[in-house]
Amino acid sequence: MGVARTEAEPADLVAGARAGKVRAIARLISMVENNSPRLREVMRLLAPYTGHAHVIGLTGSPGVGKSTTATALIAAYRARGVRVGVLAVDPSSPFTGGAVLGDRVRMQHHALDEHVYIRSMASRGHLGGLSTAAPQALRVFDAAGFDVVLVETVGVGQSEVEIASTADTTLVLLAPGMGDGIQVAKAGILEIADVFVVNKADRDGVQNLVREIRGMIGLVRRVEGDWTPSVVRTVASAESGIGDLVEQIDAHRDAQCLSGRWEQRRLVRSRAELEALALAEVRRRFLTGDRRAMVDLAAGMRDGEIDPYSAADQLLATLSAASLRHEGPGVR
Amino acid sequence: MGVARTEAEPADLVAGARAGKVRAIARLISMVENNSPRLREVMRLLAPYTGHAHVIGLTGSPGVGKSTTATALIAAYRARGVRVGVLAVDPSSPFTGGAVLGDRVRMQHHALDEHVYIRSMASRGHLGGLSTAAPQALRVFDAAGFDVVLVETVGVGQSEVEIASTADTTLVLLAPGMGDGIQVAKAGILEIADVFVVNKADRDGVQNLVREIRGMIGLVRRVEGDWTPSVVRTVASAESGIGDLVEQIDAHRDAQCLSGRWEQRRLVRSRAELEALALAEVRRRFLTGDRRAMVDLAAGMRDGEIDPYSAADQLLATLSAASLRHEGPGVR
Repeated sequence: MGVARTEAEPADLVAGARAGKVRAIARLISMVENNSPRLREVMRLLAPYTGHAHVIGLTGSPGVGKSTTATALIAAYRARGVRVGVLAVDPSSPFTGGAVLGDRVRMQHHALDEHVYIRSMASRGHLGGLSTAAPQALRVFDAAGFDVVLVETVGVGQSEVEIASTADTTLVLLAPGMGDGIQVAKAGILEIADVFVVNKADRDGVQNLVREIRGMIGLVRRVEGDWTPSVVRTVASAESGIGDLVEQIDAHRDAQCLSGRWEQRRLVRSRAELEALALAEVRRRFLTGDRRAMVDLAAGMRDGEIDPYSAADQLLATLSAASLRHEGPGVR
Repeated sequence: MGVARTEAEPADLVAGARAGKVRAIARLISMVENNSPRLREVMRLLAPYTGHAHVIGLTGSPGVGKSTTATALIAAYRARGVRVGVLAVDPSSPFTGGAVLGDRVRMQHHALDEHVYIRSMASRGHLGGLSTAAPQALRVFDAAGFDVVLVETVGVGQSEVEIASTADTTLVLLAPGMGDGIQVAKAGILEIADVFVVNKADRDGVQNLVREIRGMIGLVRRVEGDWTPSVVRTVASAESGIGDLVEQIDAHRDAQCLSGRWEQRRLVRSRAELEALALAEVRRRFLTGDRRAMVDLAAGMRDGEIDPYSAADQLLATLSAASLRHEGPGVR
């Protein structure tokens, strides 16, 4: 075992993760979650091994069957010999703790498979919130050699939608009889879908929902070039339609690669990650930096002696000076 | 009229607002809402006139009667000759558009009163969101000479709770029969309350709710020194209990001033405003700054050539260098 010491070194953990050791992967993601001071080192070691996983976002309102669909997708990918990771950042997901028994039993099956790793993640304690924690967790999955990583988020919060939207392929799940029009029209959800998954397609109202989605797709001009979002019907609990779904996911990947959009979209994702991390770093410097300067400026604002913009400029100048002073090669 | 030109100058608008002209106040707040490029100038002109208004936060779940209570408070303050501003950042508030007819009729009465200004605000389009827009709108109210400014927020989103919590006095509204235990225990709500307002106190269950609140107050040790949160019963729709409420608000102010907490809390508010604005400024510089550097770094991240932390450091260094180059006195 690579993880022998009680206080494992980043290099050992990364080597362990690269060799597919679940414990090493788990510990690395915990380091992300806890915003470990050694994350910098970890990320530096992981970087050369990233960029291979196909990241699939999976979003939709609570109750549409995201986790059931994820479970069915895992089975389909495993049947093809593909290694699958799941990152659940959905507080309502059974993966994250709110499981009903049936879901847990189904998941259990995969939990014993060493080529599947399912991980839920909380954003608490992370200065940049999900917008920095989720991409870093994806880096761990990616470097650990998972071919496909499903990111499950509930399509409610802004940051959750953002995470799903920066995936290589984004699936938006809907189900009949859940306030369809509202589901479809929901701000931001339509624009990010590469594949619409109409789950629970054995229920009444599925025709109407599909028609509504197709109408919306026709209305919204997509900037993404060649790809028109497709609509797939599934009954995830019976693993029905999952083959079609995997086919559409593959088709989307192929089309994106062909048009050059694949790399372009990954650039957008990297850019969002970079921006979020840089902002978190600025906040960290606010908290750890020259507190006196900050308090003095705030007092000046309170007392009407300085306006907020001038105060912000002065604060940032302090920060710049400090960062120029402290920065150098190898600094953490 | 001070507002003669079609393209009003910030100096004229500020002079107009200081003279109590509603149109000037309205335009200044619109500038905040639209993140006008001349906001810097506006805020510089306003700064010397700020720090006088008593900012009262008003928060609670939808349906507890926040707007009705605000309306009743306006009447009570007007009867004392106090000028009152209302800033509604609650999307469910009748002030922001979701009005039932009765509320509008009641509000209309005040709308004709030149010493009352009611304004709803959206956070869309503002880079820093509500956390920068709301304090700036408060600055406008404050400089325009309103003695009391009510900030109505729905106690749901994190930023809404934050806004309410940075008020000079924070009122948390509850009503019987709305899932009381949950209301009271709701994360963050209890800690921020200076005065609990039990509205709809003519309904069943009011005794239980009050008992529950008092129990909670006993449990939570407050850091705020002398002030123990009080509980006031109101039937805002009948303007009943509003006198007691105003009395408690005054008592809170007096106690805070005496203990020195008043200025301390305003420092916390200024600090939050400063931090939010500085972060928004960093984001603005990301968007308007050296795009080439950012794209190159993001591409390097995508291609595994650089880790995200090193990329963030390099981006911030670019930013610092640029800000040092461009900054100087009088720069906007």
